[in-house]
Amino acid sequence: MPAICLVNGIEGGALDPLDRGLHYGDGVFRTLRVENGRPRWWEEQLAKLAADAARLGIVSPEASLWQADLANLAGRLADGLIKLLLTRGCGARGYRPPDAATATRILIHDPTPPVSDFWPAEGLNVRICDLRLSAQPHLAGIKHLNRLENVLARAEWNTPEIHEGLLLDATGQVISGVMSNLFLWRDGHLLTPHLEQCGVAGVARARLLRRASAAGIAVKETNIGLDEVLEADEIMLSNSLIGLRRVARLGEHTWPKPAISPQLVALFDA
Amino acid sequence: MPAICLVNGIEGGALDPLDRGLHYGDGVFRTLRVENGRPRWWEEQLAKLAADAARLGIVSPEASLWQADLANLAGRLADGLIKLLLTRGCGARGYRPPDAATATRILIHDPTPPVSDFWPAEGLNVRICDLRLSAQPHLAGIKHLNRLENVLARAEWNTPEIHEGLLLDATGQVISGVMSNLFLWRDGHLLTPHLEQCGVAGVARARLLRRASAAGIAVKETNIGLDEVLEADEIMLSNSLIGLRRVARLGEHTWPKPAISPQLVALFDA
Repeated sequence: MPAICLVNGIEGGALDPLDRGLHYGDGVFRTLRVENGRPRWWEEQLAKLAADAARLGIVSPEASLWQADLANLAGRLADGLIKLLLTRGCGARGYRPPDAATATRILIHDPTPPVSDFWPAEGLNVRICDLRLSAQPHLAGIKHLNRLENVLARAEWNTPEIHEGLLLDATGQVISGVMSNLFLWRDGHLLTPHLEQCGVAGVARARLLRRASAAGIAVKETNIGLDEVLEADEIMLSNSLIGLRRVARLGEHTWPKPAISPQLVALFDA
Repeated sequence: MPAICLVNGIEGGALDPLDRGLHYGDGVFRTLRVENGRPRWWEEQLAKLAADAARLGIVSPEASLWQADLANLAGRLADGLIKLLLTRGCGARGYRPPDAATATRILIHDPTPPVSDFWPAEGLNVRICDLRLSAQPHLAGIKHLNRLENVLARAEWNTPEIHEGLLLDATGQVISGVMSNLFLWRDGHLLTPHLEQCGVAGVARARLLRRASAAGIAVKETNIGLDEVLEADEIMLSNSLIGLRRVARLGEHTWPKPAISPQLVALFDA
C-alpha cells in the first residue's frame, strides 16, 4: 500500500515548491508508531512537535487540526508509522522568517512495518560512525528538518547485519544513535547523554526517563565517553518505532545477556 | 508577478511530500541573478551545484535538462533571480540514501529585484550575529538545504538599516555574512575566511578570488578573527545577487571611504 499524505488537511495534496521546509529545512517533525489502528503516544508527540516548533519561532496550528487529520484516516490506519511535519510555510524570499507565515502541516501514513520490527530479539548489532556531530546549542534537542548529518552518517554502512550507528561529537562524547537515543545501565544507574549541544531529544527517551525515575530508578543525563559505553553493564537504544531495544554487540564488544532491559521495556510500555 | 516554478521541467509542478529535500534537507541549491533577460554565471553555477551534489552523493541530472528548463523560460525572464534546487528525490523511508533515487530538479524564477538592489551605494551597515556557526567539515562549503543556522541568525534583527550580519564560529573566527562571503583588504592583501569547518563557498567568492589572483593581487584564504576585521583597510561582502559591496559600518566602527573595492568590483564584473 502506498503512503497516504495529507498536506494542510488535503489528501493527496502536494507541497508548494516555495515552502521554507524545502528551501531551508525550516521546520520540525515527529515519527509515530501505529499499532492496532492507533498512533502511539499521540498527545505527547503533538506536544513535543509544538515545543520544538516554538523554539524555532514557528507558530503551531491548533491541535484540533492534527486531530481532524487523524480522524480523516479513521478505519484506514494500518500498523506502520505516521510522520508529522510542520514547516514555517511559504513567505518572503530570503532567510528571514516572514512576519506573517502560516505553517504547513503534513501528515504521512506509511502502512509498512518499520524495518526495525525484523531486528533480532536477542539484541542489536551497532557500530561507531565516523561522522562527528557538530555542536549547535540553538538547535540541540530539536527534531528539526536539517538532518544531513544523519543522512551522511547512515550512508556510512550498507550491511543489514548492522542495525544502528552510534554518533559521537567532536570532543569524543557519545550523543546518540543515528535514529535513536542511547541509554546505559551501570552500577544500578540509568544514564543517557545530555543533549545540550547536539542530538535529538526523542519522546521515547523522555518517557523512559520519566517512568524509570517514577519507579525509583536513579536516572541521569550526563557526559558519556566511549569507554563508559564499553564498560556499561548493558546499553540500549530507544525511539518511537522500536521502543527500547538492547544492544548485543558494538564492534568486538558483546553484551551476552540483559542486565536491566526487560524491566525497562516493561516500564516503558506500561 | 508571481514566481514561476518548474519541478522536473513541469511548470506549476508541485513537490512530492515524500521528497527527501523536505524531510532531511537532503539537497543543494544556487541563487542566480537575472540581468537583461539572462541568468548571470549560469555555467559556473551549474558546475558548483553539481560539485556540491556530488559531495553529498547525489547524482546530478544532465546539464541539458537545466538548459531545457531555462529555454522554457525564454522571453519570460525578468530582472530578478533564479533559484536552482536539486534534492536526492524520493525513496525508501529513513535516513539511508536509497540505492536508486532520481534527483528532483527545481527551477524557480522570481521576477522581483532583490532587496539588496536598494542598499546604499556608499556602503553597507552590518552587525555581528549572536549565533555561532557549528563546525562540520563534511558539510562545510556546500550550499546545502540545511540552513536553519542562517534562518535563526537572520531572525536576530528586524531593522532595515542593518543590511547583513557577520557570522563567527564557536572559536571566534569570522566565517561569513548570513547570506554572503566576506573579504578583507589589508596591507595590499585580499583575505577571505577559509571554509573548511563551516560556511558556504559562493560562486561570487570563487570568481573574485580567481580574477583578483589573475590580476596580480595577493589573495589568501585564512583564519580571520574579529580584530582583524576591525583593523582591515576595507571590508566587503559578496554573493551572486549583490556581486561585491563594501561595508561602511560595523557597529561603532566605520570605513568612510573605499580602499580597493572599486577596482575589485571592476575585476569582478569584467
